[in-house]
Amino acid sequence: MAHDGADMPTTIILDDLMGLAEASLPELETLVSDATSSLRAATEKDGRISGAALEANQYRAHGLAWLTTYQQSLKQLHGWAARLAEEGKLGEMEKLIVQIGFGEYLAQIAGGIQMNQGEMVRLADMDVSWTPSEAAAKLIAEGNSNAARMRLVELMRDVQGRSIFGQSGLDEDLEMIREQFYRYAEDRVKPNAHEWHLKDELIPMEIIEELAELGVFGLTIPEEYGGLGLSKASMVVVTEELSRGYIGVGSLGTRSEIAAELIICGGTEEQKQKWLPGLSSGEILSTAVFTEPNTGSDLGSLRTRAVKDGDDWLITGNKTWITHAQRTHVMTLLARTDPATDNYKGLSMFLAEKTPGTDDNPFPTEGMTGGEIEVLGYRGMKEYELGFDNFRVKGENLLGGEEGKGFKQLMETFESARIQTAARAVGVAQSALEIGMQYAIDRKQFGKSLIEFPRVSSKLAMMAVETMIARQLTYFSAWEKDHGHRCDLEAGMAKLLGARVAWAAADNALQIHGGNGFALEYQISRILCDARILNIFEGAAEIQAQVIARRLLG
Amino acid sequence: MAHDGADMPTTIILDDLMGLAEASLPELETLVSDATSSLRAATEKDGRISGAALEANQYRAHGLAWLTTYQQSLKQLHGWAARLAEEGKLGEMEKLIVQIGFGEYLAQIAGGIQMNQGEMVRLADMDVSWTPSEAAAKLIAEGNSNAARMRLVELMRDVQGRSIFGQSGLDEDLEMIREQFYRYAEDRVKPNAHEWHLKDELIPMEIIEELAELGVFGLTIPEEYGGLGLSKASMVVVTEELSRGYIGVGSLGTRSEIAAELIICGGTEEQKQKWLPGLSSGEILSTAVFTEPNTGSDLGSLRTRAVKDGDDWLITGNKTWITHAQRTHVMTLLARTDPATDNYKGLSMFLAEKTPGTDDNPFPTEGMTGGEIEVLGYRGMKEYELGFDNFRVKGENLLGGEEGKGFKQLMETFESARIQTAARAVGVAQSALEIGMQYAIDRKQFGKSLIEFPRVSSKLAMMAVETMIARQLTYFSAWEKDHGHRCDLEAGMAKLLGARVAWAAADNALQIHGGNGFALEYQISRILCDARILNIFEGAAEIQAQVIARRLLG
Ligand SMILES: Cc1cc2nc3c(=O)[nH]c(=O)nc-3n(C[C@H](O)[C@H](O)[C@H](O)COP(=O)(O)OP(=O)(O)OC[C@H]3O[C@@H](n4cnc5c(N)ncnc54)[C@H](O)[C@@H]3O)c2cc1C
Ligand SMILES: Cc1cc2nc3c(=O)[nH]c(=O)nc-3n(C[C@H](O)[C@H](O)[C@H](O)COP(=O)(O)OP(=O)(O)OC[C@H]3O[C@@H](n4cnc5c(N)ncnc54)[C@H](O)[C@@H]3O)c2cc1C
Ligand SMILES: CC(C)(COP(=O)(O)OP(=O)(O)OC[C@H]1O[C@@H](n2cnc3c(N)ncnc32)[C@H](O)[C@@H]1OP(=O)(O)O)[C@@H](O)C(=O)NCCC(=O)NCCS
Ligand SMILES: CC(C)(COP(=O)(O)OP(=O)(O)OC[C@H]1O[C@@H](n2cnc3c(N)ncnc32)[C@H](O)[C@@H]1OP(=O)(O)O)[C@@H](O)C(=O)NCCC(=O)NCCS
Repeated sequence: MAHDGADMPTTIILDDLMGLAEASLPELETLVSDATSSLRAATEKDGRISGAALEANQYRAHGLAWLTTYQQSLKQLHGWAARLAEEGKLGEMEKLIVQIGFGEYLAQIAGGIQMNQGEMVRLADMDVSWTPSEAAAKLIAEGNSNAARMRLVELMRDVQGRSIFGQSGLDEDLEMIREQFYRYAEDRVKPNAHEWHLKDELIPMEIIEELAELGVFGLTIPEEYGGLGLSKASMVVVTEELSRGYIGVGSLGTRSEIAAELIICGGTEEQKQKWLPGLSSGEILSTAVFTEPNTGSDLGSLRTRAVKDGDDWLITGNKTWITHAQRTHVMTLLARTDPATDNYKGLSMFLAEKTPGTDDNPFPTEGMTGGEIEVLGYRGMKEYELGFDNFRVKGENLLGGEEGKGFKQLMETFESARIQTAARAVGVAQSALEIGMQYAIDRKQFGKSLIEFPRVSSKLAMMAVETMIARQLTYFSAWEKDHGHRCDLEAGMAKLLGARVAWAAADNALQIHGGNGFALEYQISRILCDARILNIFEGAAEIQAQVIARRLLG
Repeated sequence: MAHDGADMPTTIILDDLMGLAEASLPELETLVSDATSSLRAATEKDGRISGAALEANQYRAHGLAWLTTYQQSLKQLHGWAARLAEEGKLGEMEKLIVQIGFGEYLAQIAGGIQMNQGEMVRLADMDVSWTPSEAAAKLIAEGNSNAARMRLVELMRDVQGRSIFGQSGLDEDLEMIREQFYRYAEDRVKPNAHEWHLKDELIPMEIIEELAELGVFGLTIPEEYGGLGLSKASMVVVTEELSRGYIGVGSLGTRSEIAAELIICGGTEEQKQKWLPGLSSGEILSTAVFTEPNTGSDLGSLRTRAVKDGDDWLITGNKTWITHAQRTHVMTLLARTDPATDNYKGLSMFLAEKTPGTDDNPFPTEGMTGGEIEVLGYRGMKEYELGFDNFRVKGENLLGGEEGKGFKQLMETFESARIQTAARAVGVAQSALEIGMQYAIDRKQFGKSLIEFPRVSSKLAMMAVETMIARQLTYFSAWEKDHGHRCDLEAGMAKLLGARVAWAAADNALQIHGGNGFALEYQISRILCDARILNIFEGAAEIQAQVIARRLLG
């Protein structure tokens, strides 16, 4: 298949593709707005959204979250292509991505959106209907054609080995950053990732030092505090490329991002001066200590207590699922300072100092114990259960110096963390795609490379298209954040879609490997395991959908 | 949610549900027949289906395979319910399963069938269209409603701990067999499965002996050869229940099934007498030796050679992915006896004797070496690469005493093997459902059990519905086989659907576990890995779809 049809592209790409795409956007906005009003009507009691009614309508509300995510995805996909077109840079590959992306997502909007394999949601579930305009109908009928997918893969083969399929649309500075981290991941991460995973070891300190050298930990920290003062967009690009190499490496920065963001947004000037330079340089490594055995999604109800002891605080309680807990110097620790509460209002955030542990003595600090949790994937930093028993935190280490602000400080920070997580998802999806594609080229059955079979190349084409959509949505959320807008909505959408896209890409790339995908020896077996985490942490998919729906209802 | 709405069921179930379901079946048959004709027209050259044209239309052909699978699924789902209704046994739970199943699958036929997460196929891809009748439209619009899903889960909670959700529709004899193996799995398999997996050990011989005692290995072997002479349906029930306990245990019988079926269909009378009694009693354990490093799906092109040496044969070549190779006594080994061929015609099947190995000396037989392949899941029998270097097979062990028949002998046997694999998938899906449901009841967030949240119970409802659909399709394929019909079509459909259903169930049950799903300690992390194999072995999903499409084209 791959090299016939070379004279067909002009007929494969729809006439006035960009016009059709643009024309379909307003009706999607109307659809989202109708579905929102309809949900609001179903859940409003006395002018306020009733929690009970929203819960009874949860499936529908989450459907709305997905519908909006698709609408925003297509808007961003179109925006990306339109900007490229303006600069005269919209190539055939990008056009095919637009066409297939619109074709598929519009068709899903019309016929059923896959929230995951198993749960489809349809417009009828949201009590709205849609008669696609001529433009949308054409895209639905002819956009995601077999010919378009085959041609896209043909073009992908021509540029294989470049870092992404289709231009990113980012400016030169960001592309230089990408190039730098692309190289780094190729040289230092990809060749080692699988061994780290199989041995289930901590990523070597050497790598952390190299990343520190490259500025990864201080990327978005203001220069006055020792950082590079770069944008969230740069963080996204760096994260994407490092995660393409290995999710574990792409996630090293997440904890610093959370700590720095907490301190920048909520810390006192002293706290900024005390912590940010060390976080920037990577000399201070941090870990995020929020989840408890009985409290994951419902973080607001956590029970670890912080009790005043003179100027200091004594922490008592159990935490779990704490990534990179052993080797780090500071914990951003959320605990209840107001024992009279059982909701988010009584929570405060601490910058709790600890002594980094070693394999022999993982948790040397007094008042603190820990044990490792063995996991499917996302290894390299390890996860731990932690126990605190009158663990001492200095009074000056209460974030912002104020009690009761912890939850909101964290929620604000989650915006950045989720953007970063969306970027990790994009990187993981891209790596699955690349590895699946290479295997499909190398492996021969029935006398030819697997990639020559339409079912194999269709998988690759869809991965490339959806990865680009998730990427553009992630860039958009970063852009919003960089422009100072509240963006839990956008970050939530990018995280929600990215996680699904990465999981599907890993699943399909493994399928392309046939039996070998099941062998621990092959990288794709790891990538499947790694990809599975994305729908769970930093807000599980259902929580993400909830956040989006809640924000839409206003 | 779970215990309000108890007075709603009469309004949840559609009026004349069974009539609506029945009324929608003929139009699906028409749709399948139109799509088949249309594909035939696109691929026929001079009155024969052109391989090249079929390959160019592969996506569409596989879409047809899925469409047919859905059509047959709904037909069997309706048939099951109609038989129950006749006996006055169609309860509310079964009605809800019918309603949700028809609602969802009809909606997917109309709007897009998920071949997997990532590849959707639509009627337009098959060049057909469908205007649902009033009956079908009603089922699409109102069948898979949130209320129906919630009610189904409510009923499931009432009967939790019974072996399946909804009556099986099987006769009493088969249900007695189920009961027996349900008990066995509860007592002997479930409590140990996770440890076997984590330790990555062979399932203890004790279990194999107990299964032998229970007749598992001779279930479908005629009594005259020492078997129980039972139906394939009984094999399905036994396999389902054992796989619900652990896929590894449910798969122990697969190899005997393949060996026995090969011998029953293709062996000489002497071969039957020599092998079947030992296979029946479990004294002879067999392993299936087909796949090679360069030859998986395209089995017909395999290269392991068998060369005559006096009366005997000498085998030379490499095999891979051979399950349970170490501990077994006989290999059903496919090799090329006609060196002038490079397709299926030159292949012959051998019953190659070997000495069972031990951990210290895994492959003691001369001319044979082997090495273990480490795998994600489906452990318990272990997989091996094997090397043969002038490995001697007695002349009398050429199956049927005739050269060149091996491939067709195997293809016939694959019918049973795929039915058995479909049953394994149903068992795995059921176990994911049960474990996910138990977790959803036990785990509390936001002040209540997870199962009270519609997004959680929707997942459980869809698992229950799809598991029942896959189950009925599997029973149907077994019924066809028991009635002496060629059923590669039916077996292929059951395997194709079952594998997807099991994978989705495992994925969603893990999602319900949140972070804990990612911990090796929790069973669901194993079930995810186990479920992933079903789309790969015994004919990968794409090969299954190909077989179905090819058979439909005639
Ligand atoms: C590998 C890994 C690393 C992690 N690292 C960290 C870390 O460094 N620091 C940290 O603090 N935490 C960490 N976590 C914890 C992670 O954030 C939580 O697992 C996550 O927030 C989900 O919480 P949970 O596991 O308790 O699941 P639960 O909250 O119990 O949720 C289980 C399931 O129920 C669903 N659900 C819950 N509530 C609702 C509802 N109201 N409606 C519908 N569905 C609902 C969820 O979506 C999910 O599918 C990590 C987890 C993992 C697995
Ligand atoms: C755990 C495990 C146990 C196994 N046990 C046994 C055993 O006991 N005995 C034995 O003989 N074998 C066994 N196998 C091998 C198994 O049957 C093969 O893995 C399977 O047949 C697929 O072959 P492959 O791995 O070579 O994949 P390939 O044939 O290389 O296929 C790779 C991918 O390409 C797709 N593909 C291939 N051809 C086409 C095409 N023409 N069009 C579209 N798509 C195509 C496939 O669907 C698949 O997605 C086992 C495998 C595993 C993983
Ligand atoms: C579920 C979840 C979204 C919050 O649910 P909740 O307890 O119902 O909380 P609410 O949505 O009512 O928010 C509580 C308050 O925080 C505020 N808030 C929420 N998100 C905010 C944001 N992004 N910026 C600023 N304020 C925010 C709300 O406005 C509300 O304030 P109000 O009461 O003054 O109006 C939250 O617990 C969550 O994200 N859970 C997932 C946990 C997670 O991601 N863990 C990862 C650990 S690594
Ligand atoms: C791909 C696959 C379906 C065969 O493809 P193929 O090489 O194109 O073979 P064909 O479909 O042309 O079949 C070859 C012959 O076998 C016959 N055949 C196929 N299935 C048959 C069946 N169920 N019963 C009887 N005969 C059968 C065909 O009719 C054909 O005979 P003909 O040439 O006389 O018409 C087969 O190789 C396969 O199932 N691969 C997957 C391997 C697998 O499952 N491995 C698991 C190991 S555990």
